Amino acid sequence: MERIDKFLEENADRFLEELMDYLRIASVSADSRHRSDMQRAAKFTRDQLVQAGLDAEVVPTDGHPIVLGRSRREPDRPTVLIYGHYDVQPPEPLDEWQTPPFEPSLRDGYVYARGATDDKGQLLTHIKSVEAWTRTHGDLPVNVLFLIEGEEEVGSDNLERFLSDHCEELASDVAVISDTMQFGPDQPAITYGLRGIIACEVRLTGPNRDLHSGSFGGAVTNPATALARLLAALHDDQGRVQIPGFYDDVRPLTEQERAEWARLPFDPAAFFADLGVTDGWGEAGYSPLERCWARPTCDVNGLVSGHTGEGPKTIVPSTAVAKISCRLVPDQNPSALLKALEQFLRARLLPGLTMEIVPHHGGQPVLFDPNSPAMHAARRAIERAFGVAPVMIREGGSIPVVASFREILGVDTLLLGWGQNTDNLHSPNERFRLIDFRRGTRASAYLWPELRDALGKG
Amino acid sequence: MERIDKFLEENADRFLEELMDYLRIASVSADSRHRSDMQRAAKFTRDQLVQAGLDAEVVPTDGHPIVLGRSRREPDRPTVLIYGHYDVQPPEPLDEWQTPPFEPSLRDGYVYARGATDDKGQLLTHIKSVEAWTRTHGDLPVNVLFLIEGEEEVGSDNLERFLSDHCEELASDVAVISDTMQFGPDQPAITYGLRGIIACEVRLTGPNRDLHSGSFGGAVTNPATALARLLAALHDDQGRVQIPGFYDDVRPLTEQERAEWARLPFDPAAFFADLGVTDGWGEAGYSPLERCWARPTCDVNGLVSGHTGEGPKTIVPSTAVAKISCRLVPDQNPSALLKALEQFLRARLLPGLTMEIVPHHGGQPVLFDPNSPAMHAARRAIERAFGVAPVMIREGGSIPVVASFREILGVDTLLLGWGQNTDNLHSPNERFRLIDFRRGTRASAYLWPELRDALGKG
Repeated sequence: MERIDKFLEENADRFLEELMDYLRIASVSADSRHRSDMQRAAKFTRDQLVQAGLDAEVVPTDGHPIVLGRSRREPDRPTVLIYGHYDVQPPEPLDEWQTPPFEPSLRDGYVYARGATDDKGQLLTHIKSVEAWTRTHGDLPVNVLFLIEGEEEVGSDNLERFLSDHCEELASDVAVISDTMQFGPDQPAITYGLRGIIACEVRLTGPNRDLHSGSFGGAVTNPATALARLLAALHDDQGRVQIPGFYDDVRPLTEQERAEWARLPFDPAAFFADLGVTDGWGEAGYSPLERCWARPTCDVNGLVSGHTGEGPKTIVPSTAVAKISCRLVPDQNPSALLKALEQFLRARLLPGLTMEIVPHHGGQPVLFDPNSPAMHAARRAIERAFGVAPVMIREGGSIPVVASFREILGVDTLLLGWGQNTDNLHSPNERFRLIDFRRGTRASAYLWPELRDALGKG
Repeated sequence: MERIDKFLEENADRFLEELMDYLRIASVSADSRHRSDMQRAAKFTRDQLVQAGLDAEVVPTDGHPIVLGRSRREPDRPTVLIYGHYDVQPPEPLDEWQTPPFEPSLRDGYVYARGATDDKGQLLTHIKSVEAWTRTHGDLPVNVLFLIEGEEEVGSDNLERFLSDHCEELASDVAVISDTMQFGPDQPAITYGLRGIIACEVRLTGPNRDLHSGSFGGAVTNPATALARLLAALHDDQGRVQIPGFYDDVRPLTEQERAEWARLPFDPAAFFADLGVTDGWGEAGYSPLERCWARPTCDVNGLVSGHTGEGPKTIVPSTAVAKISCRLVPDQNPSALLKALEQFLRARLLPGLTMEIVPHHGGQPVLFDPNSPAMHAARRAIERAFGVAPVMIREGGSIPVVASFREILGVDTLLLGWGQNTDNLHSPNERFRLIDFRRGTRASAYLWPELRDALGKG
């Protein structure tokens, strides 16, 4: 490992220069004016993989291409699938950037640019750690398989099909993704659970036109009132979701999890103060972190009915619409709960209205064993690189590719976040801390032999 | 009276021509491009009053002018204040008019034009009946005082002040307004009650930005959910408003009213079918007409929160806003109930939010004795002109000038509607039935001696 450390140290400046070259490519997947930049970024990614000693290719899809990279496949070694994405969020609003989004700037120990942490910087740590191994050892302790897409920021429309079409080639023992965050500055984290989601739009239609609330109010069912009654019924006064069977399949928090999370450096007062509120409201009996990470929710994401402009307009609205989504946790079943939500709403509809429910995309929750051999391997690698053991956390959002990896490829994922919550993902002045780039690369380099030992097939 | 009948008959064609001249003036008060039309309409109104034998003048205000007309004031006669308005609603959407809105067209026994029934046609019946009296008798059985404004369709901003400034000149024994509707075709009506109103906007603010519903959902108070819970709490399952004290001052329906309304030719199935619904929902124990005319309500007029565009966006919204209004009946107190509503909402606010309540304009409910001498006078006049006795009804909306007349001038109003619900008020193809124009004028002519007898000061 000394050779690895030495190589990483000697090449740190070059790695940073190459990251900055990568960040200069304005690979905005959402904006068709950047199509040639997307091609350039895909080729740059491929060249990085080749430089790391891998076979690599740019594979066309119906959208932006996918880049694949492979080490020579040794049957006696475990195979690690490394996922990342070379596309970035649109940089707007441009005038809020201190330096231009695609002209990387080094300041205060950070590199500032769109994509710095999401995901070019984090992704590059794995490519560079592979390069370190191949250049110093001519070989790797594991088989690596890079799958790097260009549509993560626009819904990964072509990824699932690609996985299905290539599931044999992509067969692997564990997946690694660095597209999440540390728990705090200098406190690395491994994310072992993600929430799933169901979402729908509910449209209530009452009278065939907005009505004068004087002439008709009182006799006609008001769709906005009826919608409010439906939405209010979704929770009891203790913040518990009232959809029948909602909690039946929820896997309870373990005592170990609750104890570990209670020890995390998390200050609810600071959490709420940052959001500009004094307090929160949620399911009784759980802490804010538990509510976000391990408990299911039901949230109204949007509402619209009747007069939304300035001043009064005394009407009974013709329609009322709500967007509703539930975050789910293992082992809740998204399709069963979407049906239960629909039944719940239909059963409570006031007379004189029609209801239309339009389902939106859903997603499976995932939860990995935080004590699996691969998790322990990752913990050791990170502790060695960062000098501090990672905390084991969950995340309240969804990362669809993680559910897809499990469903289509049957592989579990290690979510190893090198970024910081303060790195301005999806916002102006996105950045990546240089020390996190270096120690992320080091942790990745240490991970490969740890995974060989943990998953070893010999 | 034979002379009156003969005069009206002989001059019917001329009256119609003059109505059509009146309708040709595009007196759209809301549209500053029509300012000169407003001046023309005011002068036309004044000239009509002069032609009817009255002293008349155009009085400037801070907005559109008010037109006043007076007969010679005989102290031994009761004084009748006649209110109307010469301004009209904007005619848009223009392409839905079969003939242009300001080119009156005679079809199927109707005159079609913007303002035909609201209010030029209805107003003119009173001017023409006065003309009939002065031209046939040289005199009137009552003193008449016309007050005709040009801002009814834009909120009558300058009317209250005008009333206060001229309350002595405007002192009168009864007011007459024809700006309402018959109960149905060939079924005239006298409206003896109007609902009042309170209205406000409620703004809930939670987190200082829209939040990712995955990362934050469950721990943060969702303003849209909280708003729904407030709005849902406004009614119980029987449709009764839950604001404390809400019904305390409600004057109950009399047995006579309930019996008379039950006899009205009102078909709930047809009422709901016209609105495109199968049923309604309202306060238990009351019929649809009772709910609209004589019971108070609480309606949501508008809602907006979070994502209102297409598709999903999984956020916890930062804000949620509702417009709420309550229709009030005698003897509810608008300002006390606005406070009670505010207290009701504040008491139920979930933690983690701030609430701002912006009150909108309010209005007093009014209820006149349907058995007063003036009411009986109007009933006799209408029955004689229409050949059928008017039904005594209330109306669920508000006519602010009626409350102002009572509050500022201390005078009660006879609301004598000559229009039809099918006359397309405020819509394309507004019209006024020619027979209603003629018999409305006749009823007005019969009203003056009836009022002299009923209110006579001799």
